[in-house]
Amino acid sequence: MNEAMQRFTKSADVLFLMLGAVMIFSMHAGFAFLEVGTVRKKNQVNALVKIIADWGMSTVVYFLIGFPIAYGIHFWMNAGSLMDLINGRLAVGGRGFDLVRCFFLLSFAACVPAIISGGVAERMKFWPQFFAGAIGAGLIYPLFESISWGRHAFAQCWLMQTFGATFHDYAGSVVVHSMGGWLALPAIILLGQRIGRFRDGKSQAIPISNLPFLALGSWVLAIGWFGFNVMSAQKLEAISGLVAVNSLFAMVGGILAGLVFSKRDPGFIHNGALAGLIAICAGSDVVHPYGAFIIGAIASVLFITLYNIEANVFKIDDVLGVVPLHGVCGTWGGVAAGIFGKTILGGLGGVSLRAQIFGSCAALVYAVAAGTILYAVLKNTVGLRLSEKDELVGADIAIHNISAYPEDMMTP
Amino acid sequence: MNEAMQRFTKSADVLFLMLGAVMIFSMHAGFAFLEVGTVRKKNQVNALVKIIADWGMSTVVYFLIGFPIAYGIHFWMNAGSLMDLINGRLAVGGRGFDLVRCFFLLSFAACVPAIISGGVAERMKFWPQFFAGAIGAGLIYPLFESISWGRHAFAQCWLMQTFGATFHDYAGSVVVHSMGGWLALPAIILLGQRIGRFRDGKSQAIPISNLPFLALGSWVLAIGWFGFNVMSAQKLEAISGLVAVNSLFAMVGGILAGLVFSKRDPGFIHNGALAGLIAICAGSDVVHPYGAFIIGAIASVLFITLYNIEANVFKIDDVLGVVPLHGVCGTWGGVAAGIFGKTILGGLGGVSLRAQIFGSCAALVYAVAAGTILYAVLKNTVGLRLSEKDELVGADIAIHNISAYPEDMMTP
Amino acid sequence: MNEAMQRFTKSADVLFLMLGAVMIFSMHAGFAFLEVGTVRKKNQVNALVKIIADWGMSTVVYFLIGFPIAYGIHFWMNAGSLMDLINGRLAVGGRGFDLVRCFFLLSFAACVPAIISGGVAERMKFWPQFFAGAIGAGLIYPLFESISWGRHAFAQCWLMQTFGATFHDYAGSVVVHSMGGWLALPAIILLGQRIGRFRDGKSQAIPISNLPFLALGSWVLAIGWFGFNVMSAQKLEAISGLVAVNSLFAMVGGILAGLVFSKRDPGFIHNGALAGLIAICAGSDVVHPYGAFIIGAIASVLFITLYNIEANVFKIDDVLGVVPLHGVCGTWGGVAAGIFGKTILGGLGGVSLRAQIFGSCAALVYAVAAGTILYAVLKNTVGLRLSEKDELVGADIAIHNISAYPEDMMTP
Repeated sequence: MNEAMQRFTKSADVLFLMLGAVMIFSMHAGFAFLEVGTVRKKNQVNALVKIIADWGMSTVVYFLIGFPIAYGIHFWMNAGSLMDLINGRLAVGGRGFDLVRCFFLLSFAACVPAIISGGVAERMKFWPQFFAGAIGAGLIYPLFESISWGRHAFAQCWLMQTFGATFHDYAGSVVVHSMGGWLALPAIILLGQRIGRFRDGKSQAIPISNLPFLALGSWVLAIGWFGFNVMSAQKLEAISGLVAVNSLFAMVGGILAGLVFSKRDPGFIHNGALAGLIAICAGSDVVHPYGAFIIGAIASVLFITLYNIEANVFKIDDVLGVVPLHGVCGTWGGVAAGIFGKTILGGLGGVSLRAQIFGSCAALVYAVAAGTILYAVLKNTVGLRLSEKDELVGADIAIHNISAYPEDMMTP
Repeated sequence: MNEAMQRFTKSADVLFLMLGAVMIFSMHAGFAFLEVGTVRKKNQVNALVKIIADWGMSTVVYFLIGFPIAYGIHFWMNAGSLMDLINGRLAVGGRGFDLVRCFFLLSFAACVPAIISGGVAERMKFWPQFFAGAIGAGLIYPLFESISWGRHAFAQCWLMQTFGATFHDYAGSVVVHSMGGWLALPAIILLGQRIGRFRDGKSQAIPISNLPFLALGSWVLAIGWFGFNVMSAQKLEAISGLVAVNSLFAMVGGILAGLVFSKRDPGFIHNGALAGLIAICAGSDVVHPYGAFIIGAIASVLFITLYNIEANVFKIDDVLGVVPLHGVCGTWGGVAAGIFGKTILGGLGGVSLRAQIFGSCAALVYAVAAGTILYAVLKNTVGLRLSEKDELVGADIAIHNISAYPEDMMTP
Repeated sequence: MNEAMQRFTKSADVLFLMLGAVMIFSMHAGFAFLEVGTVRKKNQVNALVKIIADWGMSTVVYFLIGFPIAYGIHFWMNAGSLMDLINGRLAVGGRGFDLVRCFFLLSFAACVPAIISGGVAERMKFWPQFFAGAIGAGLIYPLFESISWGRHAFAQCWLMQTFGATFHDYAGSVVVHSMGGWLALPAIILLGQRIGRFRDGKSQAIPISNLPFLALGSWVLAIGWFGFNVMSAQKLEAISGLVAVNSLFAMVGGILAGLVFSKRDPGFIHNGALAGLIAICAGSDVVHPYGAFIIGAIASVLFITLYNIEANVFKIDDVLGVVPLHGVCGTWGGVAAGIFGKTILGGLGGVSLRAQIFGSCAALVYAVAAGTILYAVLKNTVGLRLSEKDELVGADIAIHNISAYPEDMMTP
């Protein structure tokens, strides 16, 4: 490759990752509106502020702490990037590729607090939520990332030796989504149910506020998701049309299964699209499109079933259903890559079901353990929960001193 | 071109079409919110579910049936794609270009049920709507597509021999939009008017629910439209800045004509932008930007005029005005490409007005005929219409068992 | 560079600028919803119509008048573009790059009326607003643009001779945002306060209508902003990852400073993100990411402080706070590029603080002067303000003859 071509390729890679980073950034607007639509009106402002504040905080902690944990100060050093960054040459020489890559990877890390936010909605104190999110995005997530994708490849080496294949997670079913979903589980349990969610041990559904906003959130997430999955190639030359089409098919599997299985329930259909997308991340580069469809359809059914079991059997008040959605479907996606990635099922092969099960379960155990410690410490020090009065009045007035629709609050 | 360059070009083409496909996918969120804002509150959930479910269904039928009809199983075979798809090599060798192209073309097909949805809103049964959409996206649309863009070029050959030019429809004014709009006409007539829409033979406008959502839908559609038109080049090397600027000018012509002609009516202005964009698809690569402006302005005036005539003279209850919008403006776009594409009017030439009229009218006749058969069969078998009780209660509660704003439904 | 490579580079540049233009176009949806959420319900339709109509009008005046002013008919001639445009060859030869560049630059110009719109909301007549916007986008803005970025480089030459550096404004903190913000100041003052905004000389906050829409607007703006800043490279080869990451850091600085400084106020946090993005435009290619963070944080605090001073001390009724937001933060961004662009502060150097102060102040003075003349002439001829009756009834009914939620207006 000649020099002009090399320069051009580098520029194209910067554009490629920049578009990916911005598409994933846009997904955070989706997280925000998914929560706004699902919570009651008195907690909508809180949903909006949590998501944007968590994005801001995640940026800081991931650049300063998370990225060095996962990819190492050595990475920066070796690439000459840290020095370049400091004296500003970075933007000129390599067109700032390493900086944009960091932005791209941050946008994954920031999903962790955004996922948890939906589970603990409507009753959690602001600053503990904010602080726990920082630990999640800056410490808990990058540690697992460093083992799966980053510099601490010892686990991957061991899996390769033991099962003949590393743990395969192309775009983060397990590393990102299941991490967020399973971290949320102890948080939700330690936080306890919302007032009025269960009466005499019986589930009393709390009506959601706004289905169009919920749907808007789902659409924004689904659109941005193509950046999440396709740009995980990280270089334009490595782009795979298969990843795009598998994302499409898994999403469609999730939509159609949700449509039938939920008897046309709008919440389950719009979340079913997300269930499919969560489950396909891991295997999107190795499974057949028909496999992707099945993975997505199963994810959607798993979500609906476990959402109901979580609430009605375990009495866990997971407002947006993030544990069955991101936790269960993420774990399912990791395992599914080991099933549908096999050549016998039309996949590209090179995956080990056992390595997938091992990796997916390791993430689950790690996340639940880390989350339990984190939220238990917070509960026993600063406390997690709004006062009963604040919860009844709503997080918007209690925390942000304003409601979502101030004009409507006026007495004429 | 050397090998490195060839590989890079292929990757860039995959990215190009993927971005186009995702931008058109995002337009479906626009279809959803345009309908949500226009229908009454009691039918908003139904609008949301129809659009996302139709997308899912269209994906399946277009990949399985529609694409082979339009481009042939031979296409797959010749390109080695089907075999590659099956054994998974596709993603590696050609970077999955053919898969992404299929995704891109599907996103056009899926517009057909999304367009019809807006016409039959607020009173149609769910499954007949869903099934008819599948026939539209998987059979009726691909048949015409195969003649215009695909492998059945006999009609194009005949036009070339007769008029000296083929039927030119760059991005689907006729093939996509007029197809959807004219298919909707028999559906709307066979379905009948909404209860209360006409009293004693006089039109009684049913107030729309939410102008901000209508405007949101229009914005999302207009933004994604640049993917619809520009990415119709299908290869990065074939990109044309003229297409982008013509889309802009036609949209602006539609906005400004709508502003003046409708006396600042927000619904007509936001739909006027779409009227311009619909009309420019066909000729966006051959007309002069000033021609594009005029095409868009005329489209906007046509839409407003015929929307009123449709309702007040013909008493047709077309909720979103999809027949004047997509049908009339699509047909106008096909014809306009034959007028403003002429070099004498600043165009690039190579178009025949007679071929354009022929092709545009053929699509109209075909769509109305196919739609009449399809919806008449459905009406006389499973029935098209909700029961009077269900219509009065609203499609949301009747079909989806939930309203758009459940919290507001609670008695305090 | 060989021929194939040259052709490919040209195509890639067209795509690059087209994506940028469309991303900035999408920001106008953000402007619309930011205003919809902030004004009262009775003025939401007016906000929507103003933004889309201003976009349409800006397109026309900028292509016809603004662009020739800023870049010259000679530019078109030299590039052979005007001739090419007229006879249509443009699309074939250069792939229409110049046309798309014009679209890209227009999308900046169109921000000027969109910014002013937020300041004069809820009480201004429609056509004077529309006409003044046309003068802003087609005349006032391009004149300053021509001096800063365009063909009238005499001021830049003089600055270079005097201070050893030209005035540096990479993506328009000063040229675009401060221009819009400071133009709005005389408009707002000449227009006067909304009825009921101040009682007995005391500020009486008028409650905003819809925080989710405000947040939606902010998100849409922030997402599109990456096109605004990154695509200001105007050629793919010139892309800079540093610009993307600096935009991110300034935005995050604005979010976090807003969070803390406003005590978790949702309006200030979501506008704080924008304050940071406005301030970073100028120096995004030369400052260190940590510098960007500080620039954004200071912008956010400046915005909140001056928003309160503007209202409570000066009794200026700036509905969306566009003067402190776009005016003050834009000017601050111009100056900040001269501070944090210095190598001593981690920047890339090549900037002069004095040149930055000079350029930023020149824009401020020019905009206030031009705005005073423009709006004073309009006030004394056609008048600026709605009648008291129309203002009380709301601009929606008064101007557009429809409310934002017509269904809710029905008596059941």
